[in-house]
Amino acid sequence: MNENTPYREQQTYLKAGVNIDAADRVKRAVRDKARITFTDGVLSDIGFFGGLFELKGYDKPVLVSSSDGVGTKIKIACALDKHNTVGIDLVNHCVNDILTCGASPLFFQDYIAMAKLNHEVIVNIIEGMTLALKETGCALIGGETAEMPGLYPKGEYDLVGFIVGVVEKKNIKNGSTIKAGDTIIGLPSSGLHTNGYSLVRKIFNTDKDPSMLSKIYPVLERPLGEALLEPHRCYHSVIKPLLSKIKGLAHITGGGLPGNLPRTLPDGLAAKINKGSWKIPPLFSLIQQQGNIEEEEMYRVFNMGVGMAIICDPSDVKDLLVMPKAKIIGEVIKQKGKRLVVV
Amino acid sequence: MNENTPYREQQTYLKAGVNIDAADRVKRAVRDKARITFTDGVLSDIGFFGGLFELKGYDKPVLVSSSDGVGTKIKIACALDKHNTVGIDLVNHCVNDILTCGASPLFFQDYIAMAKLNHEVIVNIIEGMTLALKETGCALIGGETAEMPGLYPKGEYDLVGFIVGVVEKKNIKNGSTIKAGDTIIGLPSSGLHTNGYSLVRKIFNTDKDPSMLSKIYPVLERPLGEALLEPHRCYHSVIKPLLSKIKGLAHITGGGLPGNLPRTLPDGLAAKINKGSWKIPPLFSLIQQQGNIEEEEMYRVFNMGVGMAIICDPSDVKDLLVMPKAKIIGEVIKQKGKRLVVV
Repeated sequence: MNENTPYREQQTYLKAGVNIDAADRVKRAVRDKARITFTDGVLSDIGFFGGLFELKGYDKPVLVSSSDGVGTKIKIACALDKHNTVGIDLVNHCVNDILTCGASPLFFQDYIAMAKLNHEVIVNIIEGMTLALKETGCALIGGETAEMPGLYPKGEYDLVGFIVGVVEKKNIKNGSTIKAGDTIIGLPSSGLHTNGYSLVRKIFNTDKDPSMLSKIYPVLERPLGEALLEPHRCYHSVIKPLLSKIKGLAHITGGGLPGNLPRTLPDGLAAKINKGSWKIPPLFSLIQQQGNIEEEEMYRVFNMGVGMAIICDPSDVKDLLVMPKAKIIGEVIKQKGKRLVVV
Repeated sequence: MNENTPYREQQTYLKAGVNIDAADRVKRAVRDKARITFTDGVLSDIGFFGGLFELKGYDKPVLVSSSDGVGTKIKIACALDKHNTVGIDLVNHCVNDILTCGASPLFFQDYIAMAKLNHEVIVNIIEGMTLALKETGCALIGGETAEMPGLYPKGEYDLVGFIVGVVEKKNIKNGSTIKAGDTIIGLPSSGLHTNGYSLVRKIFNTDKDPSMLSKIYPVLERPLGEALLEPHRCYHSVIKPLLSKIKGLAHITGGGLPGNLPRTLPDGLAAKINKGSWKIPPLFSLIQQQGNIEEEEMYRVFNMGVGMAIICDPSDVKDLLVMPKAKIIGEVIKQKGKRLVVV
């Protein structure tokens, strides 16, 4: 500074809200947790510029990838200061997505962004993630933790997951063999999974009055917040051994049954769903009643108790109904367009 | 509703701030733009549960993946309502990251989250992304656009990119052959790339006074905001043909030269950088002067004009200096620990 320069406070990255040392501590903690997920293919440790994974043992490998967030379920997690379950959500959502193509997970990367790095929160998220990853044999080989002052509200964050899996080309599930008369089987969801939280937050006014999350509605038999945070179920272990008997799968996420079932159907076919064929869990009925929501809207926003739909030849139904709590929920019919028919 | 139920306003997802129809329109727009990036390996269109990519023509393929955001450069983009360049940033950051392992990009997925979907903004981001992807032959095969009311500030968003590339196992660059006496070559950055924006925002007070972004400092010869939004340079086309002559690469991102060069060095070696060997661009000097920032802090936060560092045998230097504006910036020396030495 020459003598004519007026005094100016010395600025640092830290004063601007970015703590490189804290970020380094987070990286070390994540690396330690990530290592428990490492599988044979992993060639690099966390912290290199890219995550390295050797692909072995496939004849015509097709990589299947998906990216997802967990929506504003994060706001419920923040209100209850419990973050491992959204970590589980993130992984299971991604694993289910690629499972619909017949793929098994290989590796995962995460993105966590918040205004000010909170070591405990990040470690709690990563604990949930790595638990779920370990369960399906998927390796956490990289990710990004971003400190972004001024973008995220204090104490909140966003969370994104990215998964890559693999399937032999001849085993890809894309629904192309589905025909009229095929059976639709539903597997139960564990709760809302990761969809509809903005609506639920509005109905129960949880942003302004987080104490609502402690309320115990008799039908739920536990606090509302606990029911809402129930992790997204992973269908991988149940479905994988039976994939050869399955023609198509639909992961019931944003858009519900009407928005997701048609994604796996060839043109000219539609899904006819028999509404009485499974019991809608009380959480959905409570939401519908509290929000005075039309039934059609409920089916469009929530999974309504069916987290994964499976389409198979009627002759394979018996073999597939061995899956716990699997139920026939409808059939494939001929129809112009891809409209879902709910009867 | 039975007659004892008090009147309750009927709730919908739309009233809660989530517009499924707008999301569908966004998906269609993204799908159209994504198609221009499709390469041979792509087996699926945008909109299926997973993106499918067939891996062909590799003997021992190693997948290299990376995830990145663009930090609070987004806040500058929002202040100037110009979003294509952060789309370019996102892609190029990811492409450079996996290039450091010797990998060529295969496919990409993006995540865009905002409080209320803004069709124009999203399309503008995707335009930048797809332009940069097309440039390196990388396909956009999926992604997630999330409407998250209550989490993001009005008019702002976050942006995350995930890339997967591939390298033959025998061609992996991990710096393992680097030894004392090797030469370090620097390639110029195009600006701040995607690091240091929280500090810059504080120094120029751009959050509270966005008009600062229109100010033309004589040394910049253009408005500050324009200089700050300059897209992250992609090094793929320049470096790829010369990879066989390169022992290691370091993408100079968060942490600057001292934080990134050591990531590619084997234990017991350090990088000795000769500070006068390249010209520090005026944008960095302006920031340093305006923020009264110590030199060490500058090197730790910003790339200081070097966006990619390349390490090679001295006998290959001549062949590598054909890269435009490449300069010898230092050498590898023996040292305990991985400390970077700046002379």
